[in-house]
Amino acid sequence: MRPEPRLVEVRKNVLKQNDVTARALREQFRAAGVFVVSLVSSPGSGKTMFLEKTLTLLRQNYRVAALVGDLATENDAIRLARSQAPVKQITTGTLCHLEAAMVESALQEWNLNDLDFLFVENVGNLVCPSSYDLGESLRLVLISVTEGEDKPLKYPTIFNSADVAVVTKMDLAGAVEFDWNAAYGNIQAVRPGMKVFKVSAKTGDGMDEYMNFLTSRLGELRDAIVSRS
Amino acid sequence: MRPEPRLVEVRKNVLKQNDVTARALREQFRAAGVFVVSLVSSPGSGKTMFLEKTLTLLRQNYRVAALVGDLATENDAIRLARSQAPVKQITTGTLCHLEAAMVESALQEWNLNDLDFLFVENVGNLVCPSSYDLGESLRLVLISVTEGEDKPLKYPTIFNSADVAVVTKMDLAGAVEFDWNAAYGNIQAVRPGMKVFKVSAKTGDGMDEYMNFLTSRLGELRDAIVSRS
Repeated sequence: MRPEPRLVEVRKNVLKQNDVTARALREQFRAAGVFVVSLVSSPGSGKTMFLEKTLTLLRQNYRVAALVGDLATENDAIRLARSQAPVKQITTGTLCHLEAAMVESALQEWNLNDLDFLFVENVGNLVCPSSYDLGESLRLVLISVTEGEDKPLKYPTIFNSADVAVVTKMDLAGAVEFDWNAAYGNIQAVRPGMKVFKVSAKTGDGMDEYMNFLTSRLGELRDAIVSRS
Repeated sequence: MRPEPRLVEVRKNVLKQNDVTARALREQFRAAGVFVVSLVSSPGSGKTMFLEKTLTLLRQNYRVAALVGDLATENDAIRLARSQAPVKQITTGTLCHLEAAMVESALQEWNLNDLDFLFVENVGNLVCPSSYDLGESLRLVLISVTEGEDKPLKYPTIFNSADVAVVTKMDLAGAVEFDWNAAYGNIQAVRPGMKVFKVSAKTGDGMDEYMNFLTSRLGELRDAIVSRS
């Protein structure tokens, strides 16, 4: 007999508390006018390289910072620091996802009013992070061309919990015989209407369109704040 | 306040029950002389293609079967069925790992005495499966050359819980500038002495050495049974 009902009940309490913290965070982000983007994906799909490129491009005109979650090591924070943006590592131990309380605690020394964009890179995992709201304005799910076109069908929950999909490592599409139509079709089957970017952080292809999207979303957030006040 | 202590306690009970079931499974496997190999990896690292190749090669001389875990879809079972080996899909819903009880239940209609090798493909995840013993004789952790050489350092627990590592998609090593020495060094840093195979299921490179390893391990299991009886 597995004591599953009790586990489910306790898990619900954890999730409920997480939602309360996430809601408070979202309110703070909105008040400060910070646009917060979280990134989820499987390990090795290129989150960190994509984020490094994003930070490097954005910081020419915007104030940006990043939090990055991992079970162990500070490797990602070290890599992201090359972008010259402020970066903080959150190590989760054996936990396969970030929680809102970890984001809250990592932000304590930073003044949100000094930021335009905050990026939160989750632990590499296509399952666990889906249930945890981090107070973000936008959740990106990344999938690399090397992972196979069927991933949206096999991990539907994470695609459903995300707002936008990004197909990474497009420079390898030829080498792995990536089928764009199949991948796009599978994303739309799971999450009809989902916006999908295709990028190569290595060559820079597709980054312009993604940058324009982010800055226009920041503009919308700021407009909403002005019209509300 | 997060009710973490209670969650930890309940999780311990689930794991304890899983260990009991796994131990019973292991005893059944040994009694039937079946060598059981489980596969863990991140999504998209090529588990299914590697397993399809393994089943196709082994079934020329051995009786083989496979169980395959996924959150949703029966895609993997359909792909593996091309090998002509008996295959059963376990869909886990939102659970990010297989448990021993799922393996036990999936095996009910099969006679273990009719098998030499049983393969169990876990859900694609580099975190959750590490704590769950499935009664396997050998646990393989797969890492593809496209994921980056740092994965052992970032997901040490799964490498520690595995017996053997397999580097997959070696045919793409050049295209992604894969650094074998760095990857091998990182595996050894986390799990000193770990045996590492490098394969391409696409070209077949490295499969011979892996086949020889499996069949010699089956021989050892059978010898141990004979000498004990």
